[in-house]
Parts: sequence; structure tokens; C-alpha cells
Amino acid sequence: MLHNSNSLTRLVGELKKLPGIGEKTACRLAFHLLKSQSNMIALADSLQDVSAKVGLCSICFSFTETDPCQICSGGRDESIICVVEDPSDLFAIERSGAFRGRYHVLHGVLSPLSGVTPADLKITELLERLKSDHVKEVVIATNFSVEGEATAIYLTGILRKLGIKATRLAHGIPIGSDLEYIDAATMQRALNGRSEL
Amino acid sequence: MLHNSNSLTRLVGELKKLPGIGEKTACRLAFHLLKSQSNMIALADSLQDVSAKVGLCSICFSFTETDPCQICSGGRDESIICVVEDPSDLFAIERSGAFRGRYHVLHGVLSPLSGVTPADLKITELLERLKSDHVKEVVIATNFSVEGEATAIYLTGILRKLGIKATRLAHGIPIGSDLEYIDAATMQRALNGRSEL
Repeated sequence: MLHNSNSLTRLVGELKKLPGIGEKTACRLAFHLLKSQSNMIALADSLQDVSAKVGLCSICFSFTETDPCQICSGGRDESIICVVEDPSDLFAIERSGAFRGRYHVLHGVLSPLSGVTPADLKITELLERLKSDHVKEVVIATNFSVEGEATAIYLTGILRKLGIKATRLAHGIPIGSDLEYIDAATMQRALNGRSEL
Repeated sequence: MLHNSNSLTRLVGELKKLPGIGEKTACRLAFHLLKSQSNMIALADSLQDVSAKVGLCSICFSFTETDPCQICSGGRDESIICVVEDPSDLFAIERSGAFRGRYHVLHGVLSPLSGVTPADLKITELLERLKSDHVKEVVIATNFSVEGEATAIYLTGILRKLGIKATRLAHGIPIGSDLEYIDAATMQRALNGRSEL
């Protein structure tokens, strides 16, 4: 499309690699950036800064600028570890402010069809932590997808052998939702998991 | 949200400045980029490359890596100039392959409410081109917004005084559209502009 500029074509190509951004949006973003050189340079600087500074925590494998990360070095409860698929899930749980333990990021879920085996995830590292730390409970907070559930079952098997309690986040109706719009599977889980008042 | 990384917070801030990208999407893009360092660095390089190489053509004021741009230096018909608001409009017209003349990018439209006057646009430069070149027709291809129409009327007044033919893109039904879904204003224009078979 941008027949007269190789660098612009390359920029559009790079933007198109981002999730949810197609050819048209990529072009729109590129033109927007061209209109403000200062924003373009600030974005480039910021990307290089993140690339240089942010790495994985050697304990929990979340993204961090310091190693170990603030959560691992912050005197949090060592007896409970929350296992998540991705760092973004960790941040979602942190936002709730309801968890005072530590985390472990798997960086993916088991998926035999895509060739993801336990060796591709940070599972060995999790088992190392379970050995050395005094961990009493592991909250398995993988997503409720087929792969997420399979990973949870796989981990539960290991934890049972080690005599460590394995828990899973509760299913139910999200706060603020209209019952009318709740899907049947969620409603079923909410009924099964009902609590006494 | 990303309480433990200043550089990541800054990257999310920069991404949020892009059109159509809010807090959540910016976070998603940042996490996506973190997962692939090579893509992050390629994007940063590409932004710096564009920032260093792409500038405005000194004749038509479109974005270009060479000055004058390929269109201005490419032996295109000098007797007809198409005036557009933004370089992205120029590229949209070029994609059609139906225009063999040259372009002039205004970099905006007249908008008294936002304080945009003729002096803020590349109008003086357009008048210079009309003096020196042997221009016979100017196609005013500003958008059909209130400001775009006002700019078209303003330019038409000037062109009339100079004795240069001013034309406007045709209104009508887009190719492939269902008549059922055409808005009333477009239908009215399509009827008024009907052609004999």
C-alpha cells in the first residue's frame, strides 16, 4: 500500500504482528505516529527501555525489573503459592488485593495438540520450590479452558503425591451480572457451589 | 496496574496515546510484546527508522523517504492536482489507480471552532504551485464532513478567481452496497447525480 516508503511498510508490518491489529489499523496507527514525531520516538525509546530492563523473576518467573521481583522479595506468605499461566493473570489477581501469598508463572498450559509438554512449562521449577519452601497450599489459577483444566488436573496429581493441598478458584456468577444473561454452564456451577447463609 | 515496573507502565502509557487503544488493550499489547523480545526490538527499530527517514515532500507535502516524492518526480500529469486533507487520503486515492495527476496535502481542514485558519494549512504552498505550474484543474478531495466541505468551498472561491477549474469527488452509492442499507442523504445525492445509460 505504502509503495513509496520501505521503512513505513516495515513499520506497518511490525504493527500487524500485534494481537487484534490488521492491515488497516496498522496503517492508521503508523499515520498517527507520523503526525507526531515526539510520540513516535517516545514509543521507540519506551520499547527499548522495557526490552533492556524487564526480565523474568528467577523465583516466580513473572515479569520484573528487579530480581527477585517485589512480590517474591516482599515478605509475602510463603506457605501458599498461586500458579498462573501468564504474568497478566498474576496482575489480574494482584489487582483484587485478595491474595497475600506468592505466585508461580507457568508461561503456558499443557497442550498435547500444540506439542506443549510439562518440560516446556516452568513445572520443574515449581517442584523445586515445593521441595525447598514450606508450602502448604497451591492455588491452581490456570484458565478454565480445556488446556487450563488439563494442566490443573496434571498439577493436582503431582501435589497429591507430595501431600500438598491443591485448590482451584471458585466458579460462579460474576459480581454485578444479571442472572438473565448467565450461561448455562456457569449457572450449573453456581448452583452446585451454593453456600449457606 | 503494573506496580512493579516503571518502564512497563511508561510503555503502556505510550501505547494508550494511539487512536482506539485504551488501558486494557495497551496492557495486552505490552504483555504480547514482552513475550517476544525480537518483535519488541524490531518494532522499536522500525519506529526509529521511520522517524529518521520519512519526512514531507517539499512539493506535495505527502510523507516520503525521498524529496521530492516518487509521485512528484515521476512524470505524472502536471495539469491536474488533487487536494487532500491527509497523506492517508492520498494513499486511498492511489490504491484506486484511477488518478494520474499530482497531489497536494493540506495537513488538515479549516475549522474556525478549533482555531484552524488557512495559515495553518498548506494553502499558501498550493497557491504557489498554481502560479508556477500549468494547472488546469484542481480536484478537491477533502472529506465530506462540515469542515471538509467548508474547506472545499473556500478553495473553490480562490480557484475561480485564478480561472482554474475546481472539481469535487462524486457522491453516490458505494460499489457492492445494498440499496436497502443506504442512508437517505447518500440516496438523495445518488438520485440527483444520476447518469443516462
